[in-house]
Amino acid sequence: MGKLGKMVSTKIGRIPISKVWPVVDAGKFPAKAFESEVIEFGAVAFREGHDRIATELILTSPKGKTTVYPLNPGHYGTDTWSIKLPLREIGIWTFQISAWDDAFATWKHNTEVKLAAGVDQELMMQEGVRLLERFAAGAEKKIQTQFAKYGAVLSDNSLTPNERFKKVLGDGLELVAIENPLRELETRSEQYQVLCERALAGNAAWYEFFPRSEGAKKNPDGSWVSGNFKTAIDSLDRVSEMGFDVLYLPPVHPIGKSHRKGPNNSLNAGPHDPGSPWAIGSIDGGHDTIHPDLGSEKDFANFVKAANKKGIEVAMDLALQASPDHPWVKTNPQWFTTRADGSIAYAENPPKKYQDIYPINFDNDPEGIFQEVLRVVNKWVGLGVKIFRVDNPHTKPVAFWERLIAAVNQINPEVIFLAEAFTRPAMMHTLGKAGFQQSYTYFTWRNTKDELAAYLHEVSQDSANFFRPNFWVNTPDILTEFLQFGGKPAFKIRATLAAMATPLWGMYAGFELYESVARPGSEENIDNEKYEYKARDFAGALKQNASLAPRIALLNKIRKENYALQQLRNLRVHYSDDQSILVFSKHISANHAPDGKANTILVVVNCDPHSARETTIHLRLDELDVPASFKVKDLITGNSYNWGEHNFVRLDAFTEPAHIMRIER
Amino acid sequence: MGKLGKMVSTKIGRIPISKVWPVVDAGKFPAKAFESEVIEFGAVAFREGHDRIATELILTSPKGKTTVYPLNPGHYGTDTWSIKLPLREIGIWTFQISAWDDAFATWKHNTEVKLAAGVDQELMMQEGVRLLERFAAGAEKKIQTQFAKYGAVLSDNSLTPNERFKKVLGDGLELVAIENPLRELETRSEQYQVLCERALAGNAAWYEFFPRSEGAKKNPDGSWVSGNFKTAIDSLDRVSEMGFDVLYLPPVHPIGKSHRKGPNNSLNAGPHDPGSPWAIGSIDGGHDTIHPDLGSEKDFANFVKAANKKGIEVAMDLALQASPDHPWVKTNPQWFTTRADGSIAYAENPPKKYQDIYPINFDNDPEGIFQEVLRVVNKWVGLGVKIFRVDNPHTKPVAFWERLIAAVNQINPEVIFLAEAFTRPAMMHTLGKAGFQQSYTYFTWRNTKDELAAYLHEVSQDSANFFRPNFWVNTPDILTEFLQFGGKPAFKIRATLAAMATPLWGMYAGFELYESVARPGSEENIDNEKYEYKARDFAGALKQNASLAPRIALLNKIRKENYALQQLRNLRVHYSDDQSILVFSKHISANHAPDGKANTILVVVNCDPHSARETTIHLRLDELDVPASFKVKDLITGNSYNWGEHNFVRLDAFTEPAHIMRIER
Repeated sequence: MGKLGKMVSTKIGRIPISKVWPVVDAGKFPAKAFESEVIEFGAVAFREGHDRIATELILTSPKGKTTVYPLNPGHYGTDTWSIKLPLREIGIWTFQISAWDDAFATWKHNTEVKLAAGVDQELMMQEGVRLLERFAAGAEKKIQTQFAKYGAVLSDNSLTPNERFKKVLGDGLELVAIENPLRELETRSEQYQVLCERALAGNAAWYEFFPRSEGAKKNPDGSWVSGNFKTAIDSLDRVSEMGFDVLYLPPVHPIGKSHRKGPNNSLNAGPHDPGSPWAIGSIDGGHDTIHPDLGSEKDFANFVKAANKKGIEVAMDLALQASPDHPWVKTNPQWFTTRADGSIAYAENPPKKYQDIYPINFDNDPEGIFQEVLRVVNKWVGLGVKIFRVDNPHTKPVAFWERLIAAVNQINPEVIFLAEAFTRPAMMHTLGKAGFQQSYTYFTWRNTKDELAAYLHEVSQDSANFFRPNFWVNTPDILTEFLQFGGKPAFKIRATLAAMATPLWGMYAGFELYESVARPGSEENIDNEKYEYKARDFAGALKQNASLAPRIALLNKIRKENYALQQLRNLRVHYSDDQSILVFSKHISANHAPDGKANTILVVVNCDPHSARETTIHLRLDELDVPASFKVKDLITGNSYNWGEHNFVRLDAFTEPAHIMRIER
Repeated sequence: MGKLGKMVSTKIGRIPISKVWPVVDAGKFPAKAFESEVIEFGAVAFREGHDRIATELILTSPKGKTTVYPLNPGHYGTDTWSIKLPLREIGIWTFQISAWDDAFATWKHNTEVKLAAGVDQELMMQEGVRLLERFAAGAEKKIQTQFAKYGAVLSDNSLTPNERFKKVLGDGLELVAIENPLRELETRSEQYQVLCERALAGNAAWYEFFPRSEGAKKNPDGSWVSGNFKTAIDSLDRVSEMGFDVLYLPPVHPIGKSHRKGPNNSLNAGPHDPGSPWAIGSIDGGHDTIHPDLGSEKDFANFVKAANKKGIEVAMDLALQASPDHPWVKTNPQWFTTRADGSIAYAENPPKKYQDIYPINFDNDPEGIFQEVLRVVNKWVGLGVKIFRVDNPHTKPVAFWERLIAAVNQINPEVIFLAEAFTRPAMMHTLGKAGFQQSYTYFTWRNTKDELAAYLHEVSQDSANFFRPNFWVNTPDILTEFLQFGGKPAFKIRATLAAMATPLWGMYAGFELYESVARPGSEENIDNEKYEYKARDFAGALKQNASLAPRIALLNKIRKENYALQQLRNLRVHYSDDQSILVFSKHISANHAPDGKANTILVVVNCDPHSARETTIHLRLDELDVPASFKVKDLITGNSYNWGEHNFVRLDAFTEPAHIMRIER
């Protein structure tokens, strides 16, 4: 019987530690972070009875340096312990939570209580002496001497116990004990990982344009001269002046002619229609080739360099599908699905047909397809592209992406993949776990205050460890009803929300011109640029005061000047009495900010583009590290106010639907 | 480059499967179940694109029999798949979720859509033939012939494609395909465990009495003749008539004399005061000994046998602490804490002192203490005790309990441990994970409708995999304000709630007599039985209609007659417009009930003992498997009603605060 008892080993340690965070799927995937992101580490840890415990984070940097941080207790009753730290090194961090019997804290607490109650006073001095002997036993010589000195004071009968206790504490015993802990009964959690990626993986403003439109000219006969990478260089100033960090280009490869789509997604293109860039591949080449109209590989490389000079990185589209004219169709027909009649299957969602697109069948030759895609990606990486916006990743096997991203990042850890998956939550989240550094989101369809409050909380708290949201206000595929029918205030509201709420946001060209007319019955712009050239008069609009560009430039400037806005997890929603006025804050404490200064932004937005609203907002001051009364400055108007817990606001969507308040410290 | 790509292995399978349930801490601990409990198994599983998947549960019984169950899809967009099954075998079940490409469902769906749209009709027939060839390839001869026959029909040009499709489906193709699936791209989750314990671990009504009070007699001089195991046998009828399954006895061991507590927890006991049973150990023996006043070991064994004959199991107290007179203090002083002055430390929560109790120091001799406790437990198991109520387990190391319970259950898997831990959630939950079959809860302090609704949901859903709640209405330590000040209706309300909400509930003697007077300023009964004898006139109260015993008997009878009440996880809270009227249901479907009949109980309780209330209640009919209109019978009054989604109720706490409605089928 005794022997059998011995055979049983326990899964629970001497001091139970559970619910360690940040952890994704019990450690199956590393938690996500980016350079300078403030990450909270913590766990639930407790012990039996009344004795105290201490807990620590044992954190090892990618370069192998281990640092131990004491954790802070959470609210009473939760048994949580945590610490927030900014990660400033790229790579895999490993961490572990440790908990141990805090004999010193137990003795100190009991002594305080008993001295006050006049109970066991002399005994507690003796217990202290015994305890300090245990501390000394494992310490180095110099520390031993210190403990012995404190022990002598506790034994000094010429003083009362109260005097002795006060003296050792006044002489710094507590600090010496904390710095040379006993760590008896030490228990450790399992080890977990955090993957810290480069800053641009988590903090960037994106702009999208079609290079063929930039500098495109319409001929008198209605045909067009395509824009190209040389003419598009001129547009970089526009992008740079608005303060964008990433310029994303729809596919730049040759476009198929078979079943080419015409204007407004019509089935038959005219002879001058350029076709959809997503119908990739023609006699001129496939995914590894530049469309002849756009120029040469050299033109492309020059464009990338010109962008980089202006502080802009170029993101390329990775759309793994082929037009019927793609070289792969001849060289590798096994990468597609052959139907019973011998034809190659085109894309369909029965009964809808997309005959200009052949989907790839990843199960037919997984290894061949993987190696070819890896070759293509690495080719563009070699030409200076470090960011890929992946088209419809949710129609390809998730494991393919996991393998591809890992293989690319193994050699080039700076490469970033953005998942364009507008689908169900399980797939979107799993793509994040598979390695996508960024993801499109449901933001475009979250428009009311309550929807936004819930969604901002979800992406900044619940899913932040594995899903890094990039809030796009529009795309060539998405012109929401909110924008179609909300007028200019709607554009201002959405840009403000996206730019302030998450450190990643994006905009497709034309948004700044308030383009709001949809193809009837669809959620897309009419005369969609996907199927035709677009020559927009950005400069003219600016002159006529009919452009949102200045506001966008202001938003991006505010983002760059306020470290709080460069964080994802620090968003907190606050209360307002009005059903359309949303309030959230972004706060970074002085010890976490790169410049050593606390930075706090309060964003107040009237989400209803058709109204002026007045209300009182209620701030959770404990989240903001401010006194009961403080000064705020509106970074839109420059006006200053005195604010506190409860504040009156009036926001007229027709003039200015938002406050972006910085707390002045 | 290609080679490096190959080195990367993926963690995500071909068809991603995640969030498998029931799983505790990623599989670190088995999920809890008890015999006949209906357990839901499930996962999130999905694939890329539009093709269908099928999912299965692969379930292996403790005896090693593996059964495969197809899973049902959850609500659209959730990608959840699940099935509910009753577990009817005690021991460790293992399970795994499997997902695969459902090529047949994909073809069937596409064919339906395309035939209706008049697109690719002949092609879909050919695709069907090709698909059936794939099915046939791996099937046995007889099935191959069947598939060939269906294939011939699909190829039969004398029929239209619509006719062919209709014919193969009419001839049972779908069933043959489902029964002989292809399972291409099959992906499996990890394996997880469910520990199925005996029925009494999860479904029992508990009663607590002090054996020394049962048959105790007061002498004219004020001293007492102790009740004992012989006189207590007479009380078994009372317990049995009320319908209880388990009789829990406070410690039955010799009681220390040093610092013995007197009436109402006074510091100095008189010569005739019996002392607290939790001050265990005297010159007569310790945890392995019966108190001489209670009789011999043989008397105890006879008492256990007599109880068993009446269908009652006896639960013993396991209180790991010692009075200063305990034999361990002399034989094994190293099991306690010796203070700096050489004395043994008594229990204290400074500045409070409990000098009649020496706590055990589990770190001084972990192996010695473990072996001694294992010996003690096994001794009582040998005398017929299969249930232990563990006193204050949260003041002992959790890992000790994990080891002890595993060691005991390794030999005697039928032994049940109930954790009496009234402390913070993390500890209570971890004790459940450590192996405690049952736990005391916060039920006594959840009294309002909203508190109860949230708590019933928590214990039946959120924590049911690792924490099995036993709802006690009172204990010798707990007489809540609700009972002190709620009058007789409060007792009726609380008993009804506890007995109906969870399959485990408990009551300490005196509750049925509405004992409601507390020691001033405390949450305990005055003249607490912990420190004195109590001779109660149960029979007299019954005669004078001043006893709750008949109601308790009715509640326990209703529990025994309704399988829905013998389940934990099937509780659902419904809506009522009144702030004090709580509504919940317990439902078991016909295929899960031992008698093959669906059973549904609707409990409606006025939680306010000081009022009569009228309101409308709103039922979630989808949870009840009923038509829009149905008949219910009140099992308290016998009255019948026609009910539907919305129902008027009137509950007068002073006459009858509850409906217990059975849906008549």
